[in-house]
Amino acid sequence: MMEKAKVLVIMGSDSDYPVVKDCLRTLKDFNVEFTAEVCSAHRTPERAAELAGSAKESGYGVIVAAAGKAAHLPGVLAAFTTLPVVGLPIKSSLQDGMDSLLSIVQMPPGVPVATVAVNGAVNAGLLAVQILALKYDELAVRLADYKQSMKNKVENKNANLQDIINKEI
Amino acid sequence: MMEKAKVLVIMGSDSDYPVVKDCLRTLKDFNVEFTAEVCSAHRTPERAAELAGSAKESGYGVIVAAAGKAAHLPGVLAAFTTLPVVGLPIKSSLQDGMDSLLSIVQMPPGVPVATVAVNGAVNAGLLAVQILALKYDELAVRLADYKQSMKNKVENKNANLQDIINKEI
Amino acid sequence: MMEKAKVLVIMGSDSDYPVVKDCLRTLKDFNVEFTAEVCSAHRTPERAAELAGSAKESGYGVIVAAAGKAAHLPGVLAAFTTLPVVGLPIKSSLQDGMDSLLSIVQMPPGVPVATVAVNGAVNAGLLAVQILALKYDELAVRLADYKQSMKNKVENKNANLQDIINKEI
Amino acid sequence: MMEKAKVLVIMGSDSDYPVVKDCLRTLKDFNVEFTAEVCSAHRTPERAAELAGSAKESGYGVIVAAAGKAAHLPGVLAAFTTLPVVGLPIKSSLQDGMDSLLSIVQMPPGVPVATVAVNGAVNAGLLAVQILALKYDELAVRLADYKQSMKNKVENKNANLQDIINKEI
Amino acid sequence: MMEKAKVLVIMGSDSDYPVVKDCLRTLKDFNVEFTAEVCSAHRTPERAAELAGSAKESGYGVIVAAAGKAAHLPGVLAAFTTLPVVGLPIKSSLQDGMDSLLSIVQMPPGVPVATVAVNGAVNAGLLAVQILALKYDELAVRLADYKQSMKNKVENKNANLQDIINKEI
Amino acid sequence: MMEKAKVLVIMGSDSDYPVVKDCLRTLKDFNVEFTAEVCSAHRTPERAAELAGSAKESGYGVIVAAAGKAAHLPGVLAAFTTLPVVGLPIKSSLQDGMDSLLSIVQMPPGVPVATVAVNGAVNAGLLAVQILALKYDELAVRLADYKQSMKNKVENKNANLQDIINKEI
Amino acid sequence: MMEKAKVLVIMGSDSDYPVVKDCLRTLKDFNVEFTAEVCSAHRTPERAAELAGSAKESGYGVIVAAAGKAAHLPGVLAAFTTLPVVGLPIKSSLQDGMDSLLSIVQMPPGVPVATVAVNGAVNAGLLAVQILALKYDELAVRLADYKQSMKNKVENKNANLQDIINKEI
Amino acid sequence: MMEKAKVLVIMGSDSDYPVVKDCLRTLKDFNVEFTAEVCSAHRTPERAAELAGSAKESGYGVIVAAAGKAAHLPGVLAAFTTLPVVGLPIKSSLQDGMDSLLSIVQMPPGVPVATVAVNGAVNAGLLAVQILALKYDELAVRLADYKQSMKNKVENKNANLQDIINKEI
Repeated sequence: MMEKAKVLVIMGSDSDYPVVKDCLRTLKDFNVEFTAEVCSAHRTPERAAELAGSAKESGYGVIVAAAGKAAHLPGVLAAFTTLPVVGLPIKSSLQDGMDSLLSIVQMPPGVPVATVAVNGAVNAGLLAVQILALKYDELAVRLADYKQSMKNKVENKNANLQDIINKEI
Repeated sequence: MMEKAKVLVIMGSDSDYPVVKDCLRTLKDFNVEFTAEVCSAHRTPERAAELAGSAKESGYGVIVAAAGKAAHLPGVLAAFTTLPVVGLPIKSSLQDGMDSLLSIVQMPPGVPVATVAVNGAVNAGLLAVQILALKYDELAVRLADYKQSMKNKVENKNANLQDIINKEI
Repeated sequence: MMEKAKVLVIMGSDSDYPVVKDCLRTLKDFNVEFTAEVCSAHRTPERAAELAGSAKESGYGVIVAAAGKAAHLPGVLAAFTTLPVVGLPIKSSLQDGMDSLLSIVQMPPGVPVATVAVNGAVNAGLLAVQILALKYDELAVRLADYKQSMKNKVENKNANLQDIINKEI
Repeated sequence: MMEKAKVLVIMGSDSDYPVVKDCLRTLKDFNVEFTAEVCSAHRTPERAAELAGSAKESGYGVIVAAAGKAAHLPGVLAAFTTLPVVGLPIKSSLQDGMDSLLSIVQMPPGVPVATVAVNGAVNAGLLAVQILALKYDELAVRLADYKQSMKNKVENKNANLQDIINKEI
Repeated sequence: MMEKAKVLVIMGSDSDYPVVKDCLRTLKDFNVEFTAEVCSAHRTPERAAELAGSAKESGYGVIVAAAGKAAHLPGVLAAFTTLPVVGLPIKSSLQDGMDSLLSIVQMPPGVPVATVAVNGAVNAGLLAVQILALKYDELAVRLADYKQSMKNKVENKNANLQDIINKEI
Repeated sequence: MMEKAKVLVIMGSDSDYPVVKDCLRTLKDFNVEFTAEVCSAHRTPERAAELAGSAKESGYGVIVAAAGKAAHLPGVLAAFTTLPVVGLPIKSSLQDGMDSLLSIVQMPPGVPVATVAVNGAVNAGLLAVQILALKYDELAVRLADYKQSMKNKVENKNANLQDIINKEI
Repeated sequence: MMEKAKVLVIMGSDSDYPVVKDCLRTLKDFNVEFTAEVCSAHRTPERAAELAGSAKESGYGVIVAAAGKAAHLPGVLAAFTTLPVVGLPIKSSLQDGMDSLLSIVQMPPGVPVATVAVNGAVNAGLLAVQILALKYDELAVRLADYKQSMKNKVENKNANLQDIINKEI
Repeated sequence: MMEKAKVLVIMGSDSDYPVVKDCLRTLKDFNVEFTAEVCSAHRTPERAAELAGSAKESGYGVIVAAAGKAAHLPGVLAAFTTLPVVGLPIKSSLQDGMDSLLSIVQMPPGVPVATVAVNGAVNAGLLAVQILALKYDELAVRLADYKQSMKNKVENKNANLQDIINKEI
């Protein structure tokens, strides 16, 4: 695992951690190395610039950035790197996170952010893995396994549903 | 006018200029000196940091920042200065500028942006003047005159309305 | 502190106080004198006009106005003064305060309100301080300290995060 | 017609007139006397207070107030009168007038505004007539006629539709 | 009180009663006689038509209609009467009652509904009183008293606030 | 075709016809007999009740109802029939028809309306055909043909795209 | 009951079951046979295609599909069948299910989904029954009974309301 | 260029091409090979499944999918592949493409779609390049050049702005 590109996970506030946790666990499940940092686009902007600007040469292949409200962090990081930046909108203040979503996804031409669903931490991790899998074949194999295991889970849930319906309806 | 603090007006794209123009004209009407720049939070982030970081010592008293879509510019500038930053959301992509508005106004605690209406360029300029007027009494006098002239205009419009109604209704 | 301009904080209802409290504490932390009042644009409109109309000569430099729902208070106060008015939308009825936000921020040309985030009481206070700091240098110094202390807090949170991740992931 | 209560129609800006015109025409069709004024809650607040405060004793029975954006006018007038105030949101800036609608309809307890549809000028006029009809029986008779004529118009349109369909489908 | 026009209050579902209650109490406080009914535009449409169609001759002067979700009740009642219909949107399903609000307020030309805020039951009652006050002078007197008592309450709350601030800030 | 159940297409206003036309043409393409009427839930409510109430015995199998703004027509018709009612929201006033959509789709339990997309007239017609196809096998055959022809069209468009790309990119 | 067409109820996740349950109970109350399955458009897409593609020949007359968030399931099923598909948006993530609603209702021309209210499970079941009733007369009879029983319930609730009002107001 | 992974660009309708064109041109500017197809999730679902299912073994490294309204295409493709799928919401029907955005971005856990801004075609292309650049170093070099050229353009625009301001303000 040492030689694989790592994932840099940055959250704008430690209050985002309960959501971001699922992203970190997903990365760990795929045996992908990551660093997680609290770093604010507004309170520690120099550190944000530094983290993003040095990410590529530090061996990171993807950045995941989680933020809420006027969620500038993913876009600010994307300004300082050519690595793909995955944006994870956190449900915080207005309309279940609509402010976070729009602040992250509506980036101007030239500086994309790959946005996932509000609070979609598992998918932020998976998207990072899918990107790395382009280079590391073993991740592609694991993703195929993951897809199969999702199918199995749905089938099990379907089987359980039949029991529940027999009892309740 | 030389010794008064100046206003630094930054727009994220030159496509914002047709709106921002009304802000510049308002500043000029109040005889307030300003510098206007195109500077993008995402395409020229170092320049944005530099402009905001040096604004105070360069003699600026207020920053006005105009941006559309995922409008990070006002917040990014605010991260690098303790000057008041006026945010001007530009009507561009989604829902008549709702994305710009939310990206600008929903700033996290510690880094405020003084947000005006979508495309509210005149008010962005006036708010800058109101802030400077705290220190420069002649601006307070002009603001009082401006308020009076608005009243006069409304009264004139009301007089004209009576003619129109007599003809049309 | 006696000779500094004061801040007039007006809330539309005493039910806004639990939010506005953070604004008052922020002002106090910066050693900025303030008066806080409950005054409704709709129930006590004459008092609102009087408070705003006399604020400048009473020694106030900034007005902060908090209101929810059809939040007319900040705009109504701005109609009677040339002082900068900071508008603080309170999350109350519709869509997490979207009604309050739009009622405050969408002011017509000529009468700006400097709007902060929904429930953004700390920022309402900070913005008032930033405005006063234009005139009072010691406030500018304190704002720089505040900015530095925010950075330190983020760095501490980042350090703590590493421990949490070591345990939980 | 002289002895009937009149309707006071106030618009926040002369740019609202092309919409408000349909309200005035509706009042005229019902032979209801009205005064129309341009008066801004923010630019001429004293005049707004005076108009609303004296409306009852001036012989008005209903106030219709039209405004756009942060549409405070109807609520501000309602603060100064116990007459029913009909609020007419004007489609102007954001989301087809959603800002106007919310600023008008979301009034706090104690100060109602009778809100009609965005740009619903005919209905603003009709509602004023319906209110006056409570006292003036001849208006109730005319409203019943109006309702019947609407039915007839729909039936005529239905007849025409059959011709169109025969040709076009 | 016997000879005064009454208010007909109709709610679409008994689940609306906890909100509508404040409307009924407001009417009672003003000594205005009312009838309250559960009647659904969709489940008991004939009864809705009958209630609205006979309301005027049954001695009602205003109808208040409360409904949630696709809140058709106020509009359906308005179709069958020339009395003013006050629409009270109930916060139920989507976006804090935005569906109810739009379904009630966006009526087509010819059939107005006087819409109040989402869950604005007190104002629905007050608006009914304001309308009746056009004819019954004693109600106008009571409304003026009510306005004065609101002012007194705000002033009391302001006095209390000073104590709270002295303790807490 | 004579013995098949017919479709009753009702539009709230003749201004809806340019959209509804595509529904009528779709029905005609499937050789399904229909009647189209202008009938308003608010202006001709008795006729609406009569049309819906007698639709089943008049030989209709499905009702399609198109309406805009506070679009009550589909729900009002559904109140008077047990036939399936297809609701077609017309893009008219607010937010590209969001008011129409919510007014139609958010029906209370017991009275469903089968809602299609805003201005989705072709789909309103197709849904009516799909419903009738449950009983009339020849319609099921035609629907399968229609599905195949859509595939062919997409394939043709794809072929054309290749030419366009060769020229333009 | 054996010879009647059945209803195929598919939910995207077993977490939708607490809502969907009311649909199943409604079908059972009407003595309509159904199969309920958990099947995800994204996790088990082949199974979704298979279920929809074979539904008609398996004896189903209507498909009901429930899904939340980016609720693709109803549309994906509709792509593989000419049976009417009823879409049931589940309130899950954003804005009380607005994301689910728009993802289901805004289908492109050619592939309709009959959408009911967010969490409108009873109506999803009723709509399926209404569709089947076109072919099976006994269902039409039951629907008429159901409509009558709804009226009775409203009348009972109205009677109860009078007692409550007598006590509480 | 032959040995590099290609990009598969799929649009739901040929009407999306005028927007998608900018994505294709971006890919071409970076010398990245691509295939573009019209393929509908709803009209040609088997083809969509086949394209996505075979994309990896056909030598594609990223899929870009553009769609409007109930924009299921990106999610449907993601269901059949472990490649990263970039979702491009097309501004079509409701609220400037809010329906497209929510239908694409709000994917359930397990099946991410990397969403860019509404009509953000350049960024869809750039994101694909950023992803491929993880493996192909020459693309990383070009991305760095692209970033530099964006800076230069902003600086040129800034220089031009000074001329415009000198003339116009």
